[in-house]
Amino acid sequence: MRGEGSAVSGAPGAAELRELLSEARGIVRQTRALIEAALKEGFSHRSKADGSFVTDVDIAVEEKARTLLASRFPAHRIIGEELSDTGSGQALTWVIDPIDGTKSFRHGVPLYGTLLALLHGEDPVLGIIDLPGLDRTYSAARGLGTRCNDEDLKLEDLGADEALEKEIIGIGDRQQFVSAGRANVFDALMEAHPAVRTYTDCFGHALALEGSVGAMVDFDLRLWDTMASKVLMEEAGGRYVSFQRAGEGLRDRRFDVVLGKPRVVEWVLDRITGQAEA
Amino acid sequence: MRGEGSAVSGAPGAAELRELLSEARGIVRQTRALIEAALKEGFSHRSKADGSFVTDVDIAVEEKARTLLASRFPAHRIIGEELSDTGSGQALTWVIDPIDGTKSFRHGVPLYGTLLALLHGEDPVLGIIDLPGLDRTYSAARGLGTRCNDEDLKLEDLGADEALEKEIIGIGDRQQFVSAGRANVFDALMEAHPAVRTYTDCFGHALALEGSVGAMVDFDLRLWDTMASKVLMEEAGGRYVSFQRAGEGLRDRRFDVVLGKPRVVEWVLDRITGQAEA
Repeated sequence: MRGEGSAVSGAPGAAELRELLSEARGIVRQTRALIEAALKEGFSHRSKADGSFVTDVDIAVEEKARTLLASRFPAHRIIGEELSDTGSGQALTWVIDPIDGTKSFRHGVPLYGTLLALLHGEDPVLGIIDLPGLDRTYSAARGLGTRCNDEDLKLEDLGADEALEKEIIGIGDRQQFVSAGRANVFDALMEAHPAVRTYTDCFGHALALEGSVGAMVDFDLRLWDTMASKVLMEEAGGRYVSFQRAGEGLRDRRFDVVLGKPRVVEWVLDRITGQAEA
Repeated sequence: MRGEGSAVSGAPGAAELRELLSEARGIVRQTRALIEAALKEGFSHRSKADGSFVTDVDIAVEEKARTLLASRFPAHRIIGEELSDTGSGQALTWVIDPIDGTKSFRHGVPLYGTLLALLHGEDPVLGIIDLPGLDRTYSAARGLGTRCNDEDLKLEDLGADEALEKEIIGIGDRQQFVSAGRANVFDALMEAHPAVRTYTDCFGHALALEGSVGAMVDFDLRLWDTMASKVLMEEAGGRYVSFQRAGEGLRDRRFDVVLGKPRVVEWVLDRITGQAEA
């Protein structure tokens, strides 16, 4: 529990959020340009301690976003996937995933993206998913709605007369569920529904915003993988459910999330709770 | 066995194939325009007898391709997914899948495509995968190589020092393996490798051509789902392995295919043959 002295000050209002969103979209336009240049010119990669990959481009994009954020918002804290945190104890924290889906990016699968979120305390109030490979930018701020590029995006729930098995369900890599000790959830969903597809990373989250998948089921996420999606999905009118797992600080937590059309999310949750932990 | 009287006449030579490929690419430009118009204007869909969907657009695209092919090549046979065969006993047969990935298309997932192949007898000598949602057209003809848009495409095998587990493996929907009586193959591959992803339909085949996935494993296919991929993959320098299952005519056959980098295809085949039929 925070003491009174460090209580989070008031959340930004609509006018401030509109300004913050405009700035954030401008930053993402610049990071996208970096990514597009790297795809033309080539880039190198190396393995990280956890066995995953990082490329030159992940680092360059995070550095670019940090530089732009720090110059515009020097008082805000910044957490990013690849580099050390700056600032602390601030009311407002930017969270950056420079390339979500590095495995896809490295292999030339165009289904990766850049994620940017702004937290007030621990609550995301602004979120962006930018998908350079599909030329789509999803953006939202609390109370201001969700947009894809410049179009308003509203998610319709599955109708009571619509068959759940005609939907597509998005899901992360099985390996994420293995890491979370819940491979049985992955296997059970695959058996329970005829079209459970590994639309991994932010691409799957974007499909859930569009209603292209009825729900996205993504386990063992880090903060930067999912904060943008919470505000994007809630502002689009959909449901976002997250099970947090222990971690001392924000960097260390793990999130198991289900997001999408409320009826489909409910169906998924019923199947998850039916599965004992492996 | 065919009698001598109906023997397949000589395969088209390089000059004729070049001409046929140019015509086929022109046809696919026109079908893509139809698809793009439909995405703007909206379309309706209905269920087919097998429980899958067909949209107005599937029908309109196949009709357009058939009309163009019949006017240009009146002596050729035409087989398509949605409409009745025309011609018979011809040496050359066009095979059309107007929208491969109708489920994706209907749900707004941009990973569907139009497939066109030309068979000489039963051997594909020309193939096109057109992906309107990604603005990519893969084309090949026997002896002429494979291209993505206007760039030559050559697939490099996985190096002997490169780790197989760093590759991505593409796979069809689990339901296809259930239909083929081989759900155990799907489940075994998912367990055996950390990144087996359901990049379904021609999108997965295109990723295999690019080397973005090391191999694509796609079961229970029909003729029109896979003939283009055979010539595209072989001309790109990769390996294409197909297990045919019974069917009286070409329309009725089922194909279980694995295609991609030779070393990765070999790895997949080892796992498949290790699995008894369920």
